[in-house]
Amino acid sequence: MAILVTGGAGYIGSHTVAELLERGEEVVVIDNLLTGHREALLGGKLYEGDLRDKELLAKLFSENNIEAVIHFAASSLVGESMKDPVKYYDNNVYGTQCLLEAMQKAGVDKIVFSSTAATYGEPEKVPIEETDRTEPANVYGETKLTMERMMSWFDKVLGIKYVALRYFNAAGAHASGKIGEDHRPESHLIPLVLQTALKQRESIAVFGDDYPTEDGTCVRDYIHVSDLADAHVRAVSYLRSGNDSNVFNLGNGLGFSVKQVIETAKKVTGLEIPVVIQERRAGDPAVLVASSAKARSVLGWNPQHADLENIIQSAWNWHSANPQGYGE
Amino acid sequence: MAILVTGGAGYIGSHTVAELLERGEEVVVIDNLLTGHREALLGGKLYEGDLRDKELLAKLFSENNIEAVIHFAASSLVGESMKDPVKYYDNNVYGTQCLLEAMQKAGVDKIVFSSTAATYGEPEKVPIEETDRTEPANVYGETKLTMERMMSWFDKVLGIKYVALRYFNAAGAHASGKIGEDHRPESHLIPLVLQTALKQRESIAVFGDDYPTEDGTCVRDYIHVSDLADAHVRAVSYLRSGNDSNVFNLGNGLGFSVKQVIETAKKVTGLEIPVVIQERRAGDPAVLVASSAKARSVLGWNPQHADLENIIQSAWNWHSANPQGYGE
Repeated sequence: MAILVTGGAGYIGSHTVAELLERGEEVVVIDNLLTGHREALLGGKLYEGDLRDKELLAKLFSENNIEAVIHFAASSLVGESMKDPVKYYDNNVYGTQCLLEAMQKAGVDKIVFSSTAATYGEPEKVPIEETDRTEPANVYGETKLTMERMMSWFDKVLGIKYVALRYFNAAGAHASGKIGEDHRPESHLIPLVLQTALKQRESIAVFGDDYPTEDGTCVRDYIHVSDLADAHVRAVSYLRSGNDSNVFNLGNGLGFSVKQVIETAKKVTGLEIPVVIQERRAGDPAVLVASSAKARSVLGWNPQHADLENIIQSAWNWHSANPQGYGE
Repeated sequence: MAILVTGGAGYIGSHTVAELLERGEEVVVIDNLLTGHREALLGGKLYEGDLRDKELLAKLFSENNIEAVIHFAASSLVGESMKDPVKYYDNNVYGTQCLLEAMQKAGVDKIVFSSTAATYGEPEKVPIEETDRTEPANVYGETKLTMERMMSWFDKVLGIKYVALRYFNAAGAHASGKIGEDHRPESHLIPLVLQTALKQRESIAVFGDDYPTEDGTCVRDYIHVSDLADAHVRAVSYLRSGNDSNVFNLGNGLGFSVKQVIETAKKVTGLEIPVVIQERRAGDPAVLVASSAKARSVLGWNPQHADLENIIQSAWNWHSANPQGYGE
């Protein structure tokens, strides 16, 4: 039996495919390759296309014996979601509806789903726990919360069990050096900082250094992409064991400040990284850190690369060897 | 300029179309006629088709100068929603997404939307107020809540203003006697009671007579369909005046018990209505009544047919004259 990975050619998707292959799982991928990269797939059987293509989905489920689904395929740019809500409802909510419909028809009853800590919005407290208020501050977070709620109804009504994993910032790259992070456009801090070290960018902007944090810059939660991949695979095992649907945060527990990231990148690369301090951006909370106590205790998740230097070193191995990412 | 009524051939939709026509408004209707009736349309220009037909929607918006939308089109059977969630997400959530996308493209920025008191789920208290907790107890209510939340984002991001109207049970029929209630299958209490009076049904089932209410039967909130139509038209005026998006309950404030409905129907029809007392149904709260204080003060809504006898008399005028509803 195979595991279907939607968005398996994307950043976290491709690392999860790698993890599944290492464990001897049979892997089927569906990816429209609009933001994913064919080169990021280290194996598995690829269906190039979209979740909203119901015929393709039906074909995929009929040609493969799918046991469980890991669902990454989604649009995930916060800024874009606040300009084009239709795109986010269509890709994320309607796409998930099509996927669940195909699962229902094929009798597949397990899905692990990459949600986001953006479902919480402005946090009530840090670290954020799974039972805290969910009040998304952007359309991206809203569509992911809608997907979670939809899954809870497909569970209640049809018995499709799900695990939603909520996290903030994936970072780092695979130990093999073969795959890593390549978003176009890039909006994530660590690749931007490393591109600055590589002189692909003149400087890195820091938005506000007067926050009530130790060094005045925002504190965020970075998780190594291989630790995220491991959590997704653990969540599949959790459902295989007959457990009920559940929601887990994945976080590093402490968080790192923007200055810490830049200082660590300087140390790892040995290169200069010019910084420009700018105004605070609207809607940026001082600290966003998730508690992962529940994932640690229930899934037995124990991040192996929680150290910032370790995360940035692995990202640097990829970026310095692949300054153009996956190329043209 | 015209007002587009989606689901305008349905029960509440057709009464709203009648109300708009009486006020001299130009009306365009889109209805797939799966549950609506062509005969229920007393005027207006009908596009027979579905909201999910993006080409038809684009044609409709290009051929008419639409000022505002009143959106009724939806699947609305609670029981069915708990068996076929895909149908409810597709018709209600995806259908609304397609409608909002067409409105965005056409530059239409006002929508009045028939939500439901099922968005509240089991009430915290009665009468229910708009700020009370929303925790739907079925997929139907969940999809309507998702539609409300979606609209709030289309407002924030694109400036499309909306009014969501939450209510329980529409009842009664148009004063003209030309249009009334005809659901297939029928699941609403008042038509079921009147069909029993007409001997189309052997008896009417009362689910539980040991509730903590005055006569032991459940108390529910019935609103005359013409008062609902009036509220929808008032909500259009409210948006025309440049007001912000808002949510209003529409309720009669007191509610009527199942026994009261049956006794009043006996009085109105002068016929026998055999009753069979059955077990309580799971998930039926004792009292469901919404406060409409906000709609009364902000929209100036003042129901003209709040009296139960008045409601049942108008329903009886329709049912006794049209025992087969709209016919084949």
